[in-house]
Amino acid sequence: MIKFDAEKFIHEGEKVYNLRDKIEAIAIQLFNDGIKNIFFTGSGGSNAVMQPFYYWMESKSNIPSYLTTAADLLASGNKKIQKDSLVVLLSKSGDTKETVAIAKKMEKLGIRTVSFVNKDNTPLQRHSTYTINTFGYHPQEMAFYFFIGKIMAKKGEFLEYDNFAKELKYLPADMNDVAKQVDEQAKQFAERYQNAGYQIWIGSGDLWGTTYCYSMCVLEESQWLRTKSVSSPEFFHGTFELVEKNVPVILLESEGNTRPLDERVAAFAKKYTNEFTVFDMKSFPLTHISKQFRALVEPAVMWAALRRVSIHLEKIRNHPLTKRRYYRVVEY
Amino acid sequence: MIKFDAEKFIHEGEKVYNLRDKIEAIAIQLFNDGIKNIFFTGSGGSNAVMQPFYYWMESKSNIPSYLTTAADLLASGNKKIQKDSLVVLLSKSGDTKETVAIAKKMEKLGIRTVSFVNKDNTPLQRHSTYTINTFGYHPQEMAFYFFIGKIMAKKGEFLEYDNFAKELKYLPADMNDVAKQVDEQAKQFAERYQNAGYQIWIGSGDLWGTTYCYSMCVLEESQWLRTKSVSSPEFFHGTFELVEKNVPVILLESEGNTRPLDERVAAFAKKYTNEFTVFDMKSFPLTHISKQFRALVEPAVMWAALRRVSIHLEKIRNHPLTKRRYYRVVEY
Repeated sequence: MIKFDAEKFIHEGEKVYNLRDKIEAIAIQLFNDGIKNIFFTGSGGSNAVMQPFYYWMESKSNIPSYLTTAADLLASGNKKIQKDSLVVLLSKSGDTKETVAIAKKMEKLGIRTVSFVNKDNTPLQRHSTYTINTFGYHPQEMAFYFFIGKIMAKKGEFLEYDNFAKELKYLPADMNDVAKQVDEQAKQFAERYQNAGYQIWIGSGDLWGTTYCYSMCVLEESQWLRTKSVSSPEFFHGTFELVEKNVPVILLESEGNTRPLDERVAAFAKKYTNEFTVFDMKSFPLTHISKQFRALVEPAVMWAALRRVSIHLEKIRNHPLTKRRYYRVVEY
Repeated sequence: MIKFDAEKFIHEGEKVYNLRDKIEAIAIQLFNDGIKNIFFTGSGGSNAVMQPFYYWMESKSNIPSYLTTAADLLASGNKKIQKDSLVVLLSKSGDTKETVAIAKKMEKLGIRTVSFVNKDNTPLQRHSTYTINTFGYHPQEMAFYFFIGKIMAKKGEFLEYDNFAKELKYLPADMNDVAKQVDEQAKQFAERYQNAGYQIWIGSGDLWGTTYCYSMCVLEESQWLRTKSVSSPEFFHGTFELVEKNVPVILLESEGNTRPLDERVAAFAKKYTNEFTVFDMKSFPLTHISKQFRALVEPAVMWAALRRVSIHLEKIRNHPLTKRRYYRVVEY
């Protein structure tokens, strides 16, 4: 397998896992001081990484939570950000302009922030109440499972947290298995659609962030391929009229509550296009994860699968994933 | 001007305006009984119509509010929907499956619902606490201005409500002026992009719903044209890498707080594509609307402008706006 180092992945995953105590301590401290509501905010791919956690809380928690693009929040404000609010920020570089500006604003207002970053000594860290550095290692979601999971456990909304957190130790190993299992499909996909003029990407529930982000932050940003991403229920309110023979439709099929919405998409797509691809969570064994927790880990697992598509795309297309025309290249 | 009946539009607008007392009475009743939080929910275009009102409350109100696709809400639930919650539903037909299912579920739970519909005696009405029928007349937003505006007024968050509501009486007249002003630009746009293989539509703030919906519910659903819609700040986190010479980029420029985010898009697009179009709120006179309220009415006003594009597209392309391959035509 090209560009695949299973041992390194396990080793890096351990480093993220080892943050568990530190992250839980921050969660407990914040919870004990009181959390009136939670604002997840970042830009682009960062918001997409946080979407499943927003979605989880939306459904299962009494704590009001919000997911907003940092630039929007800066421009328009939110009256519900108050003394007991908690603002959760994510910026891989730790220097995304709008995210840092939010941290500074909250610092001035005396509102607590927790920032997730990939390196030390960033501007974001300097202006955040707490910072969690995951070193750029995967799965970054693990840090969020510990953080949000612990808050919900303290609130009495996720009593199985300890069992879940223990199983997460082996998530990187399971993700390696997924990468191996999906590699051939990923290669065939990359070969078939390397020059696709247009692709429709569909997903739902806690895979919506992955769907939105893979199409925008990988296919558009790093491969310059035209995509449309749409959620499974919304697909039937417009985009599906574009489906016909030869139109590539890709479904990231969830194992969570919204699976019936995905199944409806699959049934439709199978009928009206001969270019339909599914990456189905149910097809992945995940030997270390209990049935009840499988849906929770799907954003991390699906990332492991799609990462194989990216790696084959860059090779087949001779277009490195790091190549940009504009992003941090020109002034804008 | 083709398919334009200014008098009819004024006459129908009056009928919506005449609902003011009724709508305000419902808002007052609900407010006095207590509103813990508000859930806006519908599907496709309906959610897009409600997005500006969610956005308005997000920024300016202490009442927590949420905007969710009805199918998602049905599938995953939301723990914050409780006795004192208010669920706001919109379905033009009054029979959208998931929206009706939410109304029924709330009815069972004893949770109050207000439904906005376009006709009488719909399944949605039968299962809603209150129903506001706007007859399919425009601007439907007017009903929401009265409803959300009055709730925020009662809460002390929109003290200028009465002045605003009075000015709304003349909004249909101003919208007619916008339609006339923009008609030639709309015609040229429709001619130029009638066969565009791909278009990027961008907007922000309370025009995000319009951006999302115009590209999906009009261009995709009713004209079968491929689009990508993206919000102004998110444009710079992926999609902008696709911009080059000959790629059509369309900006719906807001007059609200997020205008600087739009201006950044405009500056970029002008530089990198020769196919850049702006529909700019600032270019519309709106003689009856005070400066302070202009940003609030922009979703309705922008609709009036884009409606002219739709009308020219269907004529030039000989593709009626009502033509569908799948939507409510086949089983899915």
